[in-house]
Amino acid sequence: MDKTSITQLIQDLSRLDYRGMYLQDFLLTWEKTEDELYATFMVADILRGLRQRNISSRIFDSGLAISLFRDQSTRTRFSFASAANLLGLEVQDLDEKKSQVAHGETVRETANMISFMADVIGIRDDMFIGKGNAYMREVAQSVQAGYDEGVLEQRPTLVNLQCDIDHPTQSMADMLHLINYFGGAENLAGRKIVMSWAYSPSYGKPLSVPQGVIGLMTRFGMDVVLAHPEGYEVMPEVIEVAERNAEETGGRFSRTNDMAEAFEDADIVYPKSWAPFAAMEKRTELYAKGDWDGIEALEKELLAQNAEHQDWECTEDLMAKTHNGAALYMHCLPADISGVSCERGEVAATVFDRYRRQLYKEASYKPYIIAAMIFLARMRDPADTLAELLAQASPRVR
Amino acid sequence: MDKTSITQLIQDLSRLDYRGMYLQDFLLTWEKTEDELYATFMVADILRGLRQRNISSRIFDSGLAISLFRDQSTRTRFSFASAANLLGLEVQDLDEKKSQVAHGETVRETANMISFMADVIGIRDDMFIGKGNAYMREVAQSVQAGYDEGVLEQRPTLVNLQCDIDHPTQSMADMLHLINYFGGAENLAGRKIVMSWAYSPSYGKPLSVPQGVIGLMTRFGMDVVLAHPEGYEVMPEVIEVAERNAEETGGRFSRTNDMAEAFEDADIVYPKSWAPFAAMEKRTELYAKGDWDGIEALEKELLAQNAEHQDWECTEDLMAKTHNGAALYMHCLPADISGVSCERGEVAATVFDRYRRQLYKEASYKPYIIAAMIFLARMRDPADTLAELLAQASPRVR
Amino acid sequence: MDKTSITQLIQDLSRLDYRGMYLQDFLLTWEKTEDELYATFMVADILRGLRQRNISSRIFDSGLAISLFRDQSTRTRFSFASAANLLGLEVQDLDEKKSQVAHGETVRETANMISFMADVIGIRDDMFIGKGNAYMREVAQSVQAGYDEGVLEQRPTLVNLQCDIDHPTQSMADMLHLINYFGGAENLAGRKIVMSWAYSPSYGKPLSVPQGVIGLMTRFGMDVVLAHPEGYEVMPEVIEVAERNAEETGGRFSRTNDMAEAFEDADIVYPKSWAPFAAMEKRTELYAKGDWDGIEALEKELLAQNAEHQDWECTEDLMAKTHNGAALYMHCLPADISGVSCERGEVAATVFDRYRRQLYKEASYKPYIIAAMIFLARMRDPADTLAELLAQASPRVR
Repeated sequence: MDKTSITQLIQDLSRLDYRGMYLQDFLLTWEKTEDELYATFMVADILRGLRQRNISSRIFDSGLAISLFRDQSTRTRFSFASAANLLGLEVQDLDEKKSQVAHGETVRETANMISFMADVIGIRDDMFIGKGNAYMREVAQSVQAGYDEGVLEQRPTLVNLQCDIDHPTQSMADMLHLINYFGGAENLAGRKIVMSWAYSPSYGKPLSVPQGVIGLMTRFGMDVVLAHPEGYEVMPEVIEVAERNAEETGGRFSRTNDMAEAFEDADIVYPKSWAPFAAMEKRTELYAKGDWDGIEALEKELLAQNAEHQDWECTEDLMAKTHNGAALYMHCLPADISGVSCERGEVAATVFDRYRRQLYKEASYKPYIIAAMIFLARMRDPADTLAELLAQASPRVR
Repeated sequence: MDKTSITQLIQDLSRLDYRGMYLQDFLLTWEKTEDELYATFMVADILRGLRQRNISSRIFDSGLAISLFRDQSTRTRFSFASAANLLGLEVQDLDEKKSQVAHGETVRETANMISFMADVIGIRDDMFIGKGNAYMREVAQSVQAGYDEGVLEQRPTLVNLQCDIDHPTQSMADMLHLINYFGGAENLAGRKIVMSWAYSPSYGKPLSVPQGVIGLMTRFGMDVVLAHPEGYEVMPEVIEVAERNAEETGGRFSRTNDMAEAFEDADIVYPKSWAPFAAMEKRTELYAKGDWDGIEALEKELLAQNAEHQDWECTEDLMAKTHNGAALYMHCLPADISGVSCERGEVAATVFDRYRRQLYKEASYKPYIIAAMIFLARMRDPADTLAELLAQASPRVR
Repeated sequence: MDKTSITQLIQDLSRLDYRGMYLQDFLLTWEKTEDELYATFMVADILRGLRQRNISSRIFDSGLAISLFRDQSTRTRFSFASAANLLGLEVQDLDEKKSQVAHGETVRETANMISFMADVIGIRDDMFIGKGNAYMREVAQSVQAGYDEGVLEQRPTLVNLQCDIDHPTQSMADMLHLINYFGGAENLAGRKIVMSWAYSPSYGKPLSVPQGVIGLMTRFGMDVVLAHPEGYEVMPEVIEVAERNAEETGGRFSRTNDMAEAFEDADIVYPKSWAPFAAMEKRTELYAKGDWDGIEALEKELLAQNAEHQDWECTEDLMAKTHNGAALYMHCLPADISGVSCERGEVAATVFDRYRRQLYKEASYKPYIIAAMIFLARMRDPADTLAELLAQASPRVR
């Protein structure tokens, strides 16, 4: 990205109203205004542009970025670490197996004990319905109270790195990919994007990706279709969000149980497996009761249910039905690729291969999106600071 | 903290004699002079003041702070990482399960192998009587020899993050909390502080906290009372230290087996469970012999012994006996809270709740105390360097 | 090191032709020209000299150094972390147990997913013959493709931290130790160095150390002897490399099955256990077939074979046969020391003890060698940059 383009982006940014993001968390995209979403995309692009030009965007001289992951993750961990490092923060992992974190009383205490020098806390907690996002809010309240009481010198910003409801760093990265792929957000209105269920031989994949996608993509005037077999419904609350979004932005949101119909003339397809919301809710209840036999029975039932829908695979035939047979194929990765990572999976190997470069590019936005979320929450005057960084042009690598 | 107060603290600091701390370790508080202890408190307060004013106290451009923990710990790990990060050091964990650290021959070797670029080594080793502090001294001798022989470019400073004898980062943080709570060290003389055993349903909690407290608090002219049921004696060597301290500073040190008597008119209470010294010594011997049956028998015995003293709980009734019914309640956290983290524990939930803010504040001093220990060991002219940092006022966050 | 010596080294460096190292990986020493090897030694010495003079050699303002270790390692991990930290990079460990890395399809994907902000990737993969170095090249191709396709903003440099074929960071550190011990590379020609097998009660030690040593040390006109019992042959390809090297540099490379003969008049001895190449190849095949009984049988066989050669120990008697009875004893550490770490091992305790300081010194070069490899791969004009760092003299520690 050349200097003029970066300068232009900073000017565009300065015209948006994103003051509400200062010192706030990023938990659900639908809690943010459109200006705030665009500000995040712009800051992400600017940070990437600065890095391409070997210009440092280190805004922290010291400070910690705490990662609190309730399940294992390489990609999210590296994205978070990359974003923190880009801005000058050092990641400190809170590994719950090494510690004694839990809910209730101890959340308040632990949240404060790890935050004495924390500027950011990134949380991934997507295992149980009704728990992950609630936990994030509990942590947020705890550090707010700690700051108000003079225990903490700063109130760390929370970034939702995936919860039971939304996956904002993923959906925002996906969206930024779309914006750049189609040459600007102004070219997205009216485009048909299909968030489709796809078959996977494993079970219980999180709902946060499809929910995050329909909760965000319905805000840009697009024609958003959610496709899945009967029984694979997502959270009703997010359906409501998507419907309201579509109404407010002049877009469309519809649902179908027919994958082929959904792909018809689509500009973008996002075929990915997930578990039925009702089943995940049931699993959460079984865990709460410690009913391990019940959980085992549920797993078997879900795998059997999945197996009935092996035809929900993103094949070349299906891709041929899309707009000019050339819809953009998206995935959050890793994908279950038929004949490669499993016998039958979410996508045909030739389709996946053809879009590999685009898929990697899609993923490459995530560190910048996370960095942008942090940047907007910690800088009082983000556009001014970015302009200063560009003017100073302090080299990232000597 | 305003600029004038920081300047005043730096001036006060420059009048103390703490030259003996340069390039030295911090292993036991009673190896340090009073001026050295006060210097540590002042530097901790100054570093906190600088951070509050968004002034960088980064004195290292690069360098490692090695953490060597022989048991798991979230809080100590985060305190150490926070302190290191504040000064510009990167933490590198030496996980002994990932490595081959042991005693004897290999201590010397490993200590050198991890120290080629280490400015600081923080060690926590509190499991076995007679071992932890001895291990730290073995590491200290090893890196000293490595430095003398030209193997190491610098001799890393050791910080005792908890051993079998003392817990200096805890007791120093506790003391700084007292100094600030009571408006200055000059207001502490004559105050009654009770370090009391308290009931816990778990067994074998380390002795380093009570020992650290009586070994340090007896140096400020206070009336220090150690209270515990018969059989819960601490290390005799530390009792001697406390007695000598009290004598030399015009304070008092006494012992009682009556919790209620101890609380009478107390200004400060610190009720916390620990294991009897004699039992811990026995456990160390059993481990050395690999006598697992003996260890199991000892555990049962200790739990039964604990259970006889369930009345050693910091209740509202006991708190009412303290000075104006308003003694400062202290704890190193996490506490065993009756009806919250266990059925019956160290403290009543209402007492804990009333002091929560103070407890978190108490804990918040630890990263600054650790940073101060490092600062005083690595800077040739600490007061001058602090004055320069204040004058330069390089922002921590842009 | 004084300023004049550093300046001299930088001038010497500038006369070498090492342009081929820019943006390249360091996988095998025999892929590098002699000038490139000397440049690495010089940059390592210069970086050490700068650090001794408290001059920062931080060339990165931010950026990640990814460590990808396929087996556990404290020393290599700390060397890599030290090197990265010295230059300003933050280490991010890719723990494969925490992730889903494997061969084939997923290597390409994972390599890209972790590299969005990676300047360096250090890989240790020495477990299986024919796999480790091949894996490194697969990763290298993956990140090259990612860079070419615009997915990655930079193409991270790979450093081989030990593979099935070579252990360049070890052999280069060993060599730099020799250069400095003997007062310059010009004093090495004609010296006899013995890379000898030695008995160890454990089995299956990697071949990369002896292979790395004979592959590198044969390039400096030395008289290199590889000694081992019959049946303990190393990879034939590396034997060819050593033979060719000796021929081209006017040195010698010979083999013997007699330890005493090898030690005769030696200037340097490097006695160390390793597993027979043929057995390691067989083990790799058994693993590929999942033949666990076969592996168990092989282990027993190898231990029995080892036990036949308990006399291959570096004793005082053997040391007495060396040049003036004072050959330099080398080891990559940790060593199996007779009567210390095992009943009978690679070396007598008195020999090891006498050379302890030299052994630690030998090890101390590794972080600087790794840093030099990174420096030469990432800086466009290394000599100029080093001259600038020296002139600026920005303090590492305030």
